[in-house]
Amino acid sequence: MNDDAKTFAARRGRIAEWLKERGIAAAVFEDREGRRDPTVRYLSGQPGDSLLLVTAAGRGVLVSWDVNMARKLSRVDEILAYGDFERKPVRAVLGVLAREGIRPGSQVELPSTLAYPEYIRYAEEGADFDFLCREDGADEFARGLRAVKDESEIAVYRRASAVTDELVEALEAGVRKGTISTESDAALFLERESRARGCEGMGFETLAAGPARSFGIHAFPTYTSGAFGTAGLSILDFGVCLEGYTTDVTLTFVSGRPSALQERMIALVVEAYKEAAGMLRPGVPTLEVARRVDEIFAAGGFKMPHALGHGIGLEAHEAPAMRNRDDNPWVLAPGHIVTLEPGLYDPEAGGVRLENDFLVLPGGAEALTRSRIVRL
Amino acid sequence: MNDDAKTFAARRGRIAEWLKERGIAAAVFEDREGRRDPTVRYLSGQPGDSLLLVTAAGRGVLVSWDVNMARKLSRVDEILAYGDFERKPVRAVLGVLAREGIRPGSQVELPSTLAYPEYIRYAEEGADFDFLCREDGADEFARGLRAVKDESEIAVYRRASAVTDELVEALEAGVRKGTISTESDAALFLERESRARGCEGMGFETLAAGPARSFGIHAFPTYTSGAFGTAGLSILDFGVCLEGYTTDVTLTFVSGRPSALQERMIALVVEAYKEAAGMLRPGVPTLEVARRVDEIFAAGGFKMPHALGHGIGLEAHEAPAMRNRDDNPWVLAPGHIVTLEPGLYDPEAGGVRLENDFLVLPGGAEALTRSRIVRL
Repeated sequence: MNDDAKTFAARRGRIAEWLKERGIAAAVFEDREGRRDPTVRYLSGQPGDSLLLVTAAGRGVLVSWDVNMARKLSRVDEILAYGDFERKPVRAVLGVLAREGIRPGSQVELPSTLAYPEYIRYAEEGADFDFLCREDGADEFARGLRAVKDESEIAVYRRASAVTDELVEALEAGVRKGTISTESDAALFLERESRARGCEGMGFETLAAGPARSFGIHAFPTYTSGAFGTAGLSILDFGVCLEGYTTDVTLTFVSGRPSALQERMIALVVEAYKEAAGMLRPGVPTLEVARRVDEIFAAGGFKMPHALGHGIGLEAHEAPAMRNRDDNPWVLAPGHIVTLEPGLYDPEAGGVRLENDFLVLPGGAEALTRSRIVRL
Repeated sequence: MNDDAKTFAARRGRIAEWLKERGIAAAVFEDREGRRDPTVRYLSGQPGDSLLLVTAAGRGVLVSWDVNMARKLSRVDEILAYGDFERKPVRAVLGVLAREGIRPGSQVELPSTLAYPEYIRYAEEGADFDFLCREDGADEFARGLRAVKDESEIAVYRRASAVTDELVEALEAGVRKGTISTESDAALFLERESRARGCEGMGFETLAAGPARSFGIHAFPTYTSGAFGTAGLSILDFGVCLEGYTTDVTLTFVSGRPSALQERMIALVVEAYKEAAGMLRPGVPTLEVARRVDEIFAAGGFKMPHALGHGIGLEAHEAPAMRNRDDNPWVLAPGHIVTLEPGLYDPEAGGVRLENDFLVLPGGAEALTRSRIVRL
């Protein structure tokens, strides 16, 4: 077994232990169109379109939509073709349970995102088994594992962050020189240059919003052939995807003479960002950090219409949550990689947002990326 | 009310009728990260990140994550902010039901994709209501409406198809001239040129797979800085998104001298494509068309590892299904817009796929796009 295969087997081992402690025979993870779950990749190396069953005995069986690709990319104990089960997930799960000798009556954990009518179908067609489907089930446990990055993941993040910073520099230079003057210019520069640097591409759709559109939290469409970096506030929110892991940063470009309102928004965002960055250390509830930022904005007469940040990893938004909501239970721990992205938006003045990625360390936190508010 | 607003109101009227006939008080549609549902856009104009409630009385209430954007883009009776409900979907739905005067005890239809644990939360927190969550509920009815395109949608498709064909021509020219020589070149050409022609961008991630990667049904990553159009088989699968509607075509580029195996694969794909295209007309079960293609491939000693095609619209994959599976109930009808995409793949020889879009008419079907297998 090579190192890669060992990493995936060890991760599945953690799931198997969790199952054994609870007397559950197997857990089902599923990544498919309309319901992506990168935990499949985290546990198998397979980037998508597959069912993964992990048994309490520690076996990992992948049922893949594309067996050719699965043979090249995944590291599991067995690969089966979805087509062998009439391309029906319930059949595939029941088929694997039979092959693995899981006894009728056993508990089997299904994905917590499984649709209600589908759950009913499992319960009917697989009446022999006791199917669990809970918000605090095996996939939530896996999300908790994923939130704490191990050394190999942190190494990937150091490389991905270096690429991100190179691109931030190059973007600023391009906007200043005029080679980047439209939203498309900015977004497509990133698409090309990220791949040229060995990335899989972008971790999510790049949001490039010139002054006419920066009022929106998530500009729609994500980018157009419209002007970028011209008078007013332009927002560029992007992340590169390296070996499955995404960074997530936001630059704001300020061009022309900002209005008093724009200056106040910029100053508040910078103040909130610095305050929040100074609070990041193990043991701090993320709710407190997010609440502090909302207080700063409220004191300035503003309201941020989104969360302060979020964890990043195989997904652009993952644990730990970084929001001001009473039910947010997350406490920072070493190995968490989170973003801070305070932002303010006005239908006339436009938007300003500043976002960077932070690695939580035993004694505090380290900024991994160096995005900024650029005054042109 | 302008024409646009009338179109959306009329569509919601169809939902309201359906609800009234069944004694259901309201239906909930939801588009959010991880669970997109373009029916929200179909019924409101709002492109995403919102809950939409349609009542049997015909009212359309949107609860949006971004109220600024919703005010600009949506056409509904009322817009509320998600933040007013602590950003909790269950609270938002219960809040709107109360505001609309829906009586306790009423039936309320939830999205069929709602996760099982979330359904349980609705049932608990909203115990006053009778929540339905079924595969054949209101969202399935809406998918049926969406499958039959109306005149305004067909007009959009004619424009989107013309752009698609222009891009097919330009791609072929670029590959022949050598200005497009990598997967990134091909994919980014499309990103830029689609927007320059007024599109929102691409309807899905462009798959550009040079000879080294065309063996995969869905190349991973979707495109790289690797060679494209060099000796062997290169596949390019893309669609432009115009006013929310996506086209979907696939070109295969054949370069160098094909092997006997490659020639056989190409000939079979062309034969299957022509046979299927000739079968498209109202009243034909799509299962029959897909079965015929699988028979042609089987007679040639091959097996296609995916469905024959699919409907397109606000989603890249929507009704009607075009697959050879006994539970496929779809029968072609005027207004359906479907793709045919027969393809064959070999780990060594690579892949060949040909895909175009067809509009079903009262007397047959019309090819909307003109993608092809290009011999360089």
